[in-house]
Amino acid sequence: MATRSTPRRDQEVLSAAARVFHARGYADASVQHVADELGILKGSLYHYISSKEELLYRLLDETHEEVSRILDEVAASDSPPLDRLRLYVRRQVAYNLENLERVAVYHHGLARLGDERRLDLVGRRREHEDFVTDLITAAQADGDVAAGEDPRVLTRLVFGTMILTYNWFRAGRDDPEQVADSCAEFAIRGVTGGGD
Amino acid sequence: MATRSTPRRDQEVLSAAARVFHARGYADASVQHVADELGILKGSLYHYISSKEELLYRLLDETHEEVSRILDEVAASDSPPLDRLRLYVRRQVAYNLENLERVAVYHHGLARLGDERRLDLVGRRREHEDFVTDLITAAQADGDVAAGEDPRVLTRLVFGTMILTYNWFRAGRDDPEQVADSCAEFAIRGVTGGGD
Repeated sequence: MATRSTPRRDQEVLSAAARVFHARGYADASVQHVADELGILKGSLYHYISSKEELLYRLLDETHEEVSRILDEVAASDSPPLDRLRLYVRRQVAYNLENLERVAVYHHGLARLGDERRLDLVGRRREHEDFVTDLITAAQADGDVAAGEDPRVLTRLVFGTMILTYNWFRAGRDDPEQVADSCAEFAIRGVTGGGD
Repeated sequence: MATRSTPRRDQEVLSAAARVFHARGYADASVQHVADELGILKGSLYHYISSKEELLYRLLDETHEEVSRILDEVAASDSPPLDRLRLYVRRQVAYNLENLERVAVYHHGLARLGDERRLDLVGRRREHEDFVTDLITAAQADGDVAAGEDPRVLTRLVFGTMILTYNWFRAGRDDPEQVADSCAEFAIRGVTGGGD
Protein backbone atom coordinates (compact mmCIF):
# COMPACT_ATOMS: atom_id res chain seq x y z
CA MET A 1 0.00 0.00 0.00
CA ALA A 2 1.42 3.36 -0.99
CA THR A 3 1.84 5.87 1.81
CA ARG A 4 3.47 9.34 2.06
CA SER A 5 5.30 8.60 5.30
CA THR A 6 8.79 7.24 4.74
CA PRO A 7 9.69 4.01 6.57
CA ARG A 8 12.61 4.13 8.96
CA ARG A 9 15.01 2.18 6.74
CA ASP A 10 14.26 4.46 3.80
CA GLN A 11 14.98 7.43 6.08
CA GLU A 12 18.40 5.99 6.89
CA VAL A 13 19.10 5.46 3.20
CA LEU A 14 18.08 9.02 2.33
CA SER A 15 20.10 10.52 5.18
CA ALA A 16 23.17 8.56 4.10
CA ALA A 17 22.63 9.72 0.51
CA ALA A 18 22.39 13.35 1.69
CA ARG A 19 25.69 13.06 3.55
CA VAL A 20 27.49 11.37 0.64
CA PHE A 21 26.10 13.69 -2.08
CA HIS A 22 26.97 16.71 0.07
CA ALA A 23 30.49 15.58 0.91
CA ARG A 24 31.49 14.35 -2.57
CA GLY A 25 29.19 16.32 -4.82
CA TYR A 26 26.48 14.41 -6.67
CA ALA A 27 28.50 14.00 -9.89
CA ASP A 28 31.38 12.30 -8.06
CA ALA A 29 29.27 10.21 -5.71
CA SER A 30 28.17 6.66 -6.55
CA VAL A 31 25.61 4.17 -5.24
CA GLN A 32 28.64 2.24 -3.93
CA HIS A 33 29.63 5.25 -1.78
CA VAL A 34 26.14 5.39 -0.30
CA ALA A 35 26.22 1.63 0.38
CA ASP A 36 29.61 2.08 2.09
CA GLU A 37 28.19 4.92 4.20
CA LEU A 38 25.38 2.58 5.32
CA GLY A 39 27.74 -0.34 5.84
CA ILE A 40 25.73 -2.59 3.48
CA LEU A 41 26.38 -4.23 0.12
CA LYS A 42 25.54 -2.31 -3.02
CA GLY A 43 23.18 -5.13 -4.01
CA SER A 44 21.17 -4.60 -0.82
CA LEU A 45 20.83 -0.89 -1.56
CA TYR A 46 19.28 -1.78 -4.92
CA HIS A 47 16.33 -3.22 -2.97
CA TYR A 48 15.42 0.37 -2.12
CA ILE A 49 16.36 2.29 -5.26
CA SER A 50 17.07 1.50 -8.89
CA SER A 51 19.69 4.20 -9.64
CA LYS A 52 21.70 7.10 -8.23
CA GLU A 53 19.29 9.52 -9.87
CA GLU A 54 16.31 7.86 -8.16
CA LEU A 55 18.10 8.27 -4.84
CA LEU A 56 18.58 11.97 -5.56
CA TYR A 57 14.96 12.37 -6.62
CA ARG A 58 13.59 10.65 -3.52
CA LEU A 59 15.78 12.84 -1.32
CA LEU A 60 14.55 16.02 -3.03
CA ASP A 61 10.98 14.72 -3.05
CA GLU A 62 11.08 14.16 0.70
CA THR A 63 12.57 17.61 1.30
CA HIS A 64 9.67 19.03 -0.69
CA GLU A 65 7.12 17.09 1.37
CA GLU A 66 8.58 18.60 4.51
CA VAL A 67 8.65 22.22 3.34
CA SER A 68 5.16 21.86 1.85
CA ARG A 69 3.91 20.98 5.29
CA ILE A 70 5.20 24.37 6.48
CA LEU A 71 3.38 26.10 3.65
CA ASP A 72 0.13 24.28 4.50
CA GLU A 73 0.35 25.21 8.17
CA VAL A 74 1.03 28.89 7.44
CA ALA A 75 -1.73 28.97 4.81
CA ALA A 76 -4.20 27.59 7.38
CA SER A 77 -3.59 30.58 9.69
CA ASP A 78 -6.00 33.49 9.40
CA SER A 79 -3.60 36.21 10.54
CA PRO A 80 -2.92 39.22 8.22
CA PRO A 81 -0.82 38.61 5.06
CA LEU A 82 2.40 40.15 6.38
CA ASP A 83 2.20 38.15 9.61
CA ARG A 84 1.80 34.98 7.56
CA LEU A 85 4.75 36.01 5.38
CA ARG A 86 6.89 36.62 8.46
CA LEU A 87 5.93 33.21 9.90
CA TYR A 88 6.55 31.46 6.56
CA VAL A 89 10.06 32.95 6.21
CA ARG A 90 10.95 32.21 9.82
CA ARG A 91 9.82 28.58 9.60
CA GLN A 92 11.41 27.88 6.21
CA VAL A 93 14.74 29.32 7.37
CA ALA A 94 14.54 27.29 10.60
CA TYR A 95 13.97 24.17 8.48
CA ASN A 96 16.94 25.03 6.26
CA LEU A 97 19.21 25.48 9.26
CA GLU A 98 18.16 22.12 10.72
CA ASN A 99 18.74 20.36 7.38
CA LEU A 100 21.86 22.03 5.99
CA GLU A 101 23.13 19.04 4.01
CA ARG A 102 19.78 18.18 2.44
CA VAL A 103 19.16 21.78 1.47
CA ALA A 104 22.62 22.07 -0.09
CA VAL A 105 22.04 18.85 -2.04
CA TYR A 106 18.65 20.17 -3.09
CA HIS A 107 20.11 23.34 -4.60
CA HIS A 108 23.06 21.69 -6.29
CA GLY A 109 21.21 18.54 -7.32
CA LEU A 110 18.03 19.85 -8.93
CA ALA A 111 19.76 20.54 -12.25
CA ARG A 112 21.12 16.96 -12.32
CA LEU A 113 17.73 15.28 -12.44
CA GLY A 114 16.18 14.09 -15.68
CA ASP A 115 13.63 16.45 -17.24
CA GLU A 116 10.46 14.82 -15.92
CA ARG A 117 11.56 14.64 -12.30
CA ARG A 118 13.13 18.09 -12.40
CA LEU A 119 10.00 19.67 -13.84
CA ASP A 120 7.88 17.93 -11.19
CA LEU A 121 9.96 19.55 -8.42
CA VAL A 122 10.14 22.93 -10.16
CA GLY A 123 6.33 22.86 -10.37
CA ARG A 124 6.06 22.17 -6.64
CA ARG A 125 8.55 24.95 -5.91
CA ARG A 126 6.35 27.21 -7.98
CA GLU A 127 3.54 26.64 -5.45
CA HIS A 128 5.74 28.24 -2.81
CA GLU A 129 6.53 31.19 -5.02
CA ASP A 130 2.84 31.69 -5.83
CA PHE A 131 1.98 31.49 -2.15
CA VAL A 132 4.44 34.29 -1.31
CA THR A 133 3.35 36.38 -4.32
CA ASP A 134 -0.29 36.06 -3.20
CA LEU A 135 0.59 37.22 0.32
CA ILE A 136 2.49 40.23 -1.07
CA THR A 137 -0.36 41.07 -3.43
CA ALA A 138 -2.83 40.87 -0.53
CA ALA A 139 -0.58 43.16 1.55
CA GLN A 140 -0.46 45.53 -1.41
CA ALA A 141 -4.27 45.60 -1.53
CA ASP A 142 -4.23 46.44 2.21
CA GLY A 143 -1.86 49.34 1.47
CA ASP A 144 1.02 47.73 3.40
CA VAL A 145 3.25 47.30 0.32
CA ALA A 146 3.83 50.14 -2.15
CA ALA A 147 1.54 49.92 -5.18
CA GLY A 148 4.42 50.41 -7.61
CA GLU A 149 6.32 47.29 -6.49
CA ASP A 150 6.27 44.15 -8.65
CA PRO A 151 5.11 41.29 -6.36
CA ARG A 152 6.97 38.74 -8.54
CA VAL A 153 10.31 40.54 -8.06
CA LEU A 154 9.68 41.00 -4.33
CA THR A 155 8.91 37.27 -4.14
CA ARG A 156 12.31 36.42 -5.65
CA LEU A 157 14.03 38.71 -3.18
CA VAL A 158 12.19 37.13 -0.25
CA PHE A 159 13.45 33.74 -1.45
CA GLY A 160 16.95 35.23 -1.78
CA THR A 161 16.71 36.04 1.93
CA MET A 162 15.89 32.41 2.76
CA ILE A 163 17.71 30.21 0.28
CA LEU A 164 21.37 31.01 0.85
CA THR A 165 21.22 30.63 4.61
CA TYR A 166 22.38 27.01 4.23
CA ASN A 167 25.54 28.38 2.67
CA TRP A 168 26.72 30.75 5.39
CA PHE A 169 25.12 29.45 8.58
CA ARG A 170 27.64 27.82 10.92
CA ALA A 171 26.29 25.68 13.74
CA GLY A 172 28.03 26.70 16.95
CA ARG A 173 28.82 30.21 15.73
CA ASP A 174 25.33 31.30 14.67
CA ASP A 175 22.12 30.94 16.67
CA PRO A 176 19.44 29.32 14.45
CA GLU A 177 16.46 31.03 16.16
CA GLN A 178 18.11 34.44 15.91
CA VAL A 179 19.07 33.92 12.26
CA ALA A 180 15.54 32.77 11.38
CA ASP A 181 14.14 35.89 13.08
CA SER A 182 16.64 38.20 11.35
CA CYS A 183 15.75 36.74 7.95
CA ALA A 184 12.02 37.16 8.61
CA GLU A 185 12.39 40.78 9.74
CA PHE A 186 14.75 41.61 6.84
CA ALA A 187 12.25 40.17 4.37
CA ILE A 188 9.31 42.05 5.90
CA ARG A 189 11.27 45.32 5.93
CA GLY A 190 12.44 44.67 2.37
CA VAL A 191 8.87 44.13 1.20
CA THR A 192 7.25 46.95 3.16
CA GLY A 193 9.94 49.48 3.98
CA GLY A 194 9.30 48.90 7.69
CA GLY A 195 6.73 51.12 9.46
CA ASP A 196 3.78 52.10 7.31
CA MET B 1 55.50 41.09 -18.82
CA ALA B 2 52.56 40.18 -16.57
CA THR B 3 49.52 42.38 -16.93
CA ARG B 4 46.03 42.27 -15.42
CA SER B 5 44.22 42.92 -18.69
CA THR B 6 43.26 39.76 -20.54
CA PRO B 7 44.27 39.53 -24.24
CA ARG B 8 41.50 39.12 -26.77
CA ARG B 9 42.21 35.46 -27.55
CA ASP B 10 42.16 34.57 -23.87
CA GLN B 11 38.83 36.36 -23.59
CA GLU B 12 37.40 34.17 -26.34
CA VAL B 13 38.70 31.06 -24.59
CA LEU B 14 37.19 32.11 -21.26
CA SER B 15 33.84 33.02 -22.83
CA ALA B 16 33.69 29.64 -24.59
CA ALA B 17 34.55 27.91 -21.31
CA ALA B 18 31.75 29.82 -19.54
CA ARG B 19 29.22 28.71 -22.17
CA VAL B 20 30.35 25.07 -22.08
CA PHE B 21 30.61 24.82 -18.28
CA HIS B 22 27.19 26.44 -17.96
CA ALA B 23 25.47 24.27 -20.55
CA ARG B 24 26.99 20.92 -19.50
CA GLY B 25 27.88 21.52 -15.88
CA TYR B 26 31.55 21.66 -14.97
CA ALA B 27 31.78 17.99 -13.93
CA ASP B 28 30.49 16.77 -17.29
CA ALA B 29 32.41 19.28 -19.44
CA SER B 30 35.84 18.53 -20.89
CA VAL B 31 38.67 20.53 -22.46
CA GLN B 32 37.65 18.81 -25.69
CA HIS B 33 34.16 20.36 -25.43
CA VAL B 34 35.68 23.82 -25.00
CA ALA B 35 37.97 23.26 -27.99
CA ASP B 36 34.94 22.17 -30.04
CA GLU B 37 33.07 25.31 -28.97
CA LEU B 38 36.03 27.39 -30.19
CA GLY B 39 36.41 25.34 -33.38
CA ILE B 40 40.07 24.56 -32.63
CA LEU B 41 42.03 21.42 -31.81
CA LYS B 42 42.37 20.39 -28.19
CA GLY B 43 46.16 20.63 -28.59
CA SER B 44 45.86 24.30 -29.54
CA LEU B 45 43.78 25.01 -26.44
CA TYR B 46 46.58 23.61 -24.29
CA HIS B 47 48.70 26.58 -25.42
CA TYR B 48 46.45 28.70 -23.21
CA ILE B 49 45.70 26.44 -20.27
CA SER B 50 47.14 23.30 -18.73
CA SER B 51 43.95 21.69 -17.41
CA LYS B 52 40.17 22.01 -17.11
CA GLU B 53 40.58 23.19 -13.55
CA GLU B 54 42.94 25.97 -14.66
CA LEU B 55 40.33 27.07 -17.18
CA LEU B 56 37.72 27.24 -14.41
CA TYR B 57 40.09 29.12 -12.11
CA ARG B 58 40.98 31.70 -14.77
CA LEU B 59 37.31 32.24 -15.50
CA LEU B 60 36.49 32.77 -11.84
CA ASP B 61 39.61 34.90 -11.39
CA GLU B 62 38.56 37.20 -14.21
CA THR B 63 35.02 37.47 -12.84
CA HIS B 64 36.57 38.51 -9.54
CA GLU B 65 38.73 41.15 -11.21
CA GLU B 66 35.63 42.66 -12.77
CA VAL B 67 33.50 42.78 -9.63
CA SER B 68 36.48 44.10 -7.64
CA ARG B 69 36.57 47.06 -9.98
CA ILE B 70 32.98 47.85 -8.96
CA LEU B 71 33.96 47.66 -5.30
CA ASP B 72 36.92 50.00 -5.87
CA GLU B 73 34.79 52.56 -7.68
CA VAL B 74 32.09 52.57 -5.01
CA ALA B 75 34.70 52.74 -2.25
CA ALA B 76 36.24 55.81 -3.93
CA SER B 77 32.94 57.71 -3.63
CA ASP B 78 32.52 59.99 -0.61
CA SER B 79 28.73 59.77 -0.40
CA PRO B 80 27.08 58.55 2.85
CA PRO B 81 27.36 54.82 3.71
CA LEU B 82 23.81 53.86 2.70
CA ASP B 83 24.14 55.65 -0.65
CA ARG B 84 27.34 53.72 -1.29
CA LEU B 85 25.61 50.48 -0.28
CA ARG B 86 22.71 51.21 -2.65
CA LEU B 87 25.13 51.95 -5.51
CA TYR B 88 27.19 48.83 -4.75
CA VAL B 89 24.13 46.54 -4.82
CA ARG B 90 22.76 48.13 -7.97
CA ARG B 91 26.06 47.83 -9.84
CA GLN B 92 26.82 44.28 -8.71
CA VAL B 93 23.34 43.11 -9.72
CA ALA B 94 23.66 44.89 -13.08
CA TYR B 95 26.98 43.04 -13.60
CA ASN B 96 25.36 39.71 -12.69
CA LEU B 97 22.54 40.27 -15.17
CA GLU B 98 24.98 41.10 -17.95
CA ASN B 99 27.07 37.98 -17.20
CA LEU B 100 24.50 35.33 -16.33
CA GLU B 101 26.52 32.33 -17.51
CA ARG B 102 29.76 33.38 -15.84
CA VAL B 103 28.01 34.10 -12.58
CA ALA B 104 26.22 30.74 -12.66
CA VAL B 105 29.54 28.99 -13.34
CA TYR B 106 31.11 30.98 -10.51
CA HIS B 107 28.55 29.79 -7.96
CA HIS B 108 28.50 26.17 -9.06
CA GLY B 109 32.21 25.95 -9.85
CA LEU B 110 33.86 27.40 -6.77
CA ALA B 111 33.53 24.16 -4.81
CA ARG B 112 35.17 22.23 -7.66
CA LEU B 113 38.49 24.06 -7.46
CA GLY B 114 41.46 22.64 -5.59
CA ASP B 115 41.97 24.00 -2.07
CA GLU B 116 44.60 26.64 -2.84
CA ARG B 117 42.72 28.26 -5.68
CA ARG B 118 39.39 28.02 -3.90
CA LEU B 119 40.75 29.65 -0.76
CA ASP B 120 42.29 32.42 -2.86
CA LEU B 121 38.89 33.26 -4.32
CA VAL B 122 37.06 32.88 -1.00
CA GLY B 123 39.54 35.35 0.49
CA ARG B 124 38.82 37.85 -2.26
CA ARG B 125 35.09 37.35 -1.81
CA ARG B 126 35.64 38.10 1.86
CA GLU B 127 36.84 41.60 0.87
CA HIS B 128 33.39 42.26 -0.57
CA GLU B 129 31.67 40.99 2.54
CA ASP B 130 33.90 43.14 4.76
CA PHE B 131 33.22 46.17 2.56
CA VAL B 132 29.45 45.76 2.99
CA THR B 133 29.78 45.06 6.72
CA ASP B 134 31.84 48.24 7.13
CA LEU B 135 29.19 50.29 5.31
CA ILE B 136 26.44 48.83 7.52
CA THR B 137 28.51 49.46 10.66
CA ALA B 138 29.10 53.07 9.57
CA ALA B 139 25.36 53.50 8.93
CA GLN B 140 24.72 52.04 12.38
CA ALA B 141 27.07 54.63 13.91
CA ASP B 142 25.10 57.33 12.03
CA GLY B 143 21.87 55.97 13.59
CA ASP B 144 20.50 54.82 10.20
CA VAL B 145 20.55 51.10 11.09
CA ALA B 146 19.13 49.78 14.38
CA ALA B 147 21.82 49.30 17.03
CA GLY B 148 20.60 45.78 17.85
CA GLU B 149 21.17 44.39 14.34
CA ASP B 150 24.18 42.17 13.66
CA PRO B 151 26.05 43.75 10.70
CA ARG B 152 27.46 40.33 9.70
CA VAL B 153 23.98 38.80 9.37
CA LEU B 154 22.66 41.86 7.51
CA THR B 155 25.65 41.55 5.17
CA ARG B 156 24.72 37.95 4.33
CA LEU B 157 21.14 39.00 3.64
CA VAL B 158 22.28 41.83 1.37
CA PHE B 159 24.30 39.26 -0.60
CA GLY B 160 21.23 37.01 -0.68
CA THR B 161 19.45 39.87 -2.44
CA MET B 162 22.17 40.04 -5.11
CA ILE B 163 23.49 36.53 -5.64
CA LEU B 164 20.45 34.59 -6.83
CA THR B 165 19.41 37.13 -9.46
CA TYR B 166 21.36 35.11 -12.06
CA ASN B 167 19.03 32.23 -11.30
CA TRP B 168 15.65 33.86 -11.89
CA PHE B 169 16.37 36.77 -14.23
CA ARG B 170 15.08 36.13 -17.77
CA ALA B 171 16.36 38.41 -20.52
CA GLY B 172 13.40 39.64 -22.54
CA ARG B 173 10.91 39.17 -19.68
CA ASP B 174 12.73 41.19 -17.00
CA ASP B 175 14.23 44.65 -17.36
CA PRO B 176 17.82 44.59 -16.02
CA GLU B 177 17.84 48.25 -14.87
CA GLN B 178 14.56 47.84 -13.04
CA VAL B 179 15.67 44.59 -11.39
CA ALA B 180 18.97 46.14 -10.29
CA ASP B 181 17.05 49.08 -8.78
CA SER B 182 14.53 46.80 -7.06
CA CYS B 183 17.34 44.75 -5.50
CA ALA B 184 19.12 47.87 -4.27
CA GLU B 185 15.95 49.32 -2.72
CA PHE B 186 14.98 45.97 -1.15
CA ALA B 187 18.45 45.68 0.39
CA ILE B 188 18.39 49.24 1.74
CA ARG B 189 14.90 48.76 3.20
CA GLY B 190 15.94 45.39 4.61
CA VAL B 191 18.96 46.94 6.32
CA THR B 192 17.28 50.14 7.56
CA GLY B 193 13.54 49.49 7.71
CA GLY B 194 12.98 52.25 5.18
CA GLY B 195 12.38 55.82 6.43
CA ASP B 196 14.35 56.72 9.54
